[in-house]
Amino acid sequence: MKLFNAPALLAAFACLAMGPLANANPKSVILIIGDGFDDQHVTMGRNYLSGQSGTLILDTMPFRGAVQVETVDAAGSAIYVADSANTATTLATGAVTIIGRVGKDRDDERVQTVLEAAAAVGYKTGIVSTASVTDATPAAFAAHVGVRACENPVSIRGGKKYGVTFEGCPRDLVENGGAGSIAEQLANANVDLILGGGMEHFAARFENNPSALDMTTEAGATVLTRKDQLDDRYVGRVVGLFAEDTMPVKWQGSNGRSAEDIERSWLNLAHEMIGSITQPDTIACVDNPSFEAIPPLETMTRFAIDHLSRDNEKGFFLTIESASIDKQSHVRDPCGSIGEIEQLERALSVVNDYAARNPDTLVIVTADHAQAAQIVPDPTLYTGLPIPVFSPGKVARVETPEGSLMRINYATNNIRSEEHTGANVPLFANEQGNAVLTPFMRQREIYQAMMQYLEL
Amino acid sequence: MKLFNAPALLAAFACLAMGPLANANPKSVILIIGDGFDDQHVTMGRNYLSGQSGTLILDTMPFRGAVQVETVDAAGSAIYVADSANTATTLATGAVTIIGRVGKDRDDERVQTVLEAAAAVGYKTGIVSTASVTDATPAAFAAHVGVRACENPVSIRGGKKYGVTFEGCPRDLVENGGAGSIAEQLANANVDLILGGGMEHFAARFENNPSALDMTTEAGATVLTRKDQLDDRYVGRVVGLFAEDTMPVKWQGSNGRSAEDIERSWLNLAHEMIGSITQPDTIACVDNPSFEAIPPLETMTRFAIDHLSRDNEKGFFLTIESASIDKQSHVRDPCGSIGEIEQLERALSVVNDYAARNPDTLVIVTADHAQAAQIVPDPTLYTGLPIPVFSPGKVARVETPEGSLMRINYATNNIRSEEHTGANVPLFANEQGNAVLTPFMRQREIYQAMMQYLEL
Ligand SMILES: [Zn+2]
Ligand SMILES: [Zn+2]
Repeated sequence: MKLFNAPALLAAFACLAMGPLANANPKSVILIIGDGFDDQHVTMGRNYLSGQSGTLILDTMPFRGAVQVETVDAAGSAIYVADSANTATTLATGAVTIIGRVGKDRDDERVQTVLEAAAAVGYKTGIVSTASVTDATPAAFAAHVGVRACENPVSIRGGKKYGVTFEGCPRDLVENGGAGSIAEQLANANVDLILGGGMEHFAARFENNPSALDMTTEAGATVLTRKDQLDDRYVGRVVGLFAEDTMPVKWQGSNGRSAEDIERSWLNLAHEMIGSITQPDTIACVDNPSFEAIPPLETMTRFAIDHLSRDNEKGFFLTIESASIDKQSHVRDPCGSIGEIEQLERALSVVNDYAARNPDTLVIVTADHAQAAQIVPDPTLYTGLPIPVFSPGKVARVETPEGSLMRINYATNNIRSEEHTGANVPLFANEQGNAVLTPFMRQREIYQAMMQYLEL
Repeated sequence: MKLFNAPALLAAFACLAMGPLANANPKSVILIIGDGFDDQHVTMGRNYLSGQSGTLILDTMPFRGAVQVETVDAAGSAIYVADSANTATTLATGAVTIIGRVGKDRDDERVQTVLEAAAAVGYKTGIVSTASVTDATPAAFAAHVGVRACENPVSIRGGKKYGVTFEGCPRDLVENGGAGSIAEQLANANVDLILGGGMEHFAARFENNPSALDMTTEAGATVLTRKDQLDDRYVGRVVGLFAEDTMPVKWQGSNGRSAEDIERSWLNLAHEMIGSITQPDTIACVDNPSFEAIPPLETMTRFAIDHLSRDNEKGFFLTIESASIDKQSHVRDPCGSIGEIEQLERALSVVNDYAARNPDTLVIVTADHAQAAQIVPDPTLYTGLPIPVFSPGKVARVETPEGSLMRINYATNNIRSEEHTGANVPLFANEQGNAVLTPFMRQREIYQAMMQYLEL
């Protein structure tokens, strides 16, 4: 159901003319999650986007703190490094759970999310992500499965991926009395707006059963697939799927390059104290052509806020994920991560504008977990040593706009994907944060704070 | 000059009896620097000392924020990873400078420090460190040399270390009109209290010239060398040197073990996708016997506050460094770093007690720069993959008191010492911080805030 802009504008004027009602104060929470957005990544973003002495929009937020990430194993013992599934679940539900869980506790039981609690009492709700909307972080706010890979009606049945046999989520199968895969759950979820990637998961079909896309249309939601469709307004539920899976990122390394091994001479390979090494060439961050067809996070955010706030006196809960800070660090592409941070910054600017006009809006920015990238010296702190000095792992030497070189080291894994790390993560908020946040929190306490703010 | 405890106690009673004067409000700043104490290290400390869901004393500080570290090269261009010399200089003087500088700007010109400015108007001043007091961080508050290695009258003349020829600090030589080495400058500095390691630098003697120790005694300061001497009180300047160089740390890995390489089978060395790997044994943190003779940071802090606050209506500036968080991460010993964090916590407790009784006391805790250690998953996030998964670099698997395993990865360098990293660092403060601090600052702005607080 498309609504033309002109009538909407008229409706807005009509609303303004209503007097008292127009002054009703909706109460809203906007939670921005930078996936893997730890202090190394925040600083990578600052150094690149604003310069070493510059200021991110994030840095102007009046509230800042730190959040401890909690993860447990099946027996409930502490695990010191998390994944996005268990941490998003904690942020969304307050439950501390095991790696891989989405919206479920460690006993595989469904836990209500802040989004669901908000929707139940009449708040509008939305989910925006640069990942597939079926990916763990967005999914944890409105879906409940035992293992994050159960994204669609096919994958929920298990199978083999990267040589690993995966049993799927038998408890979540519809025929076993479960709610189905993440895509199926999102198709019918009480969420007013879902925007991101993930068409392949919505289109996936098991045997002759309807796909999640069929279910979404059946449920009366408007499905969007093109960036230009976000120029218009719509009434009712909107599900926008603008990429098959994760959205292409905005920036990439020049010539498609990411972090590389140091080139070591034969002598050096024979003994690392002799011979010589060659540093990788520097990398410039350049536009990724695949991004052109993709709605920027800023655009999705503007659309989401308009959609959720329009004719809404109650307020809304909106979560926005900049997903590929993490995903690009897994594959050691600092330009990819930095482009995602730039997207987060622009989205935050839109959010801050809305919050400035609607003072009962709590804006929180945080990360789900820390990630592998480290800014290391270029050249080494040990220049002058008569032996070759180099870091294990892979290195990218990024040219920054202020004319310096930022060297990023990825050295947590030998395989194609880096590991997450275990540091506490940053917390930013607007002035409203002072009412419900404290300088040091656990992720479950962020959930509690949002519930408290929305009086849930 | 030793003062017995009994008369001091009498003096305290006499002071209490004085009425109005006893109620005068001294104004003080206590700056605690955790060297290399970034969010990975804060979390390592929390997980070990308080448990994953526990709370450090630090975490109870009512003010929390982040501090951007700034470093430049000789031409003034941004450098994204710092050392302790340039960052301590920035915290102490507000000048952004080049790596290696102590109390001097990038043009090798002396810059006045907050400690010197405070001393000049009658505040008492003190420096406490678990490093040699001639090491860059403590030195930057009261000494000025071109290169940090110019710690004593011999090293200031240059030489060769680890195969690197070092020209020393010719501009700082006394015969060239300079102020001499760091030890010589500290011997005569207008600082009421200096406690830490560094006896070898004070004892060092060039030809037949007096040593810095000779100068210190000559200047009328009381020199302490034994832990038990801190049970007493003294009048006038006190210089305590309790170790030859850096103080031994409180904890170490069981059987003297620190991070180790993953053991790889011959097959795996031939091709990393095949064969097998063996994880290092776990490590328990145990007492370091060499620490027994060393005054804990808590003891030095208590002594320092008593010495500086006694009969002092004006107030004081005190900087306290927990130095070996960084130094132990350089050598990949997580237990060493965690023991230093425990020392910082205990010192902070003493500081907070004083601040609670003396409300015009600004307490700041921050780090100078980020450091190499990363908490990584144990086991890997990629369990189940049919290939060996391991991190490059070195790994320590630390047994935590709550019964879990915390895996620490060090992978920034192939040589004996890790590199620093470039993330912004944490900032903590007591309530007084609200008056002069903001959630996001640069290190030079910490200097400005301390100057402002002391009305300098
Ligand atoms: Zn990830
Ligand atoms: Zn260091």
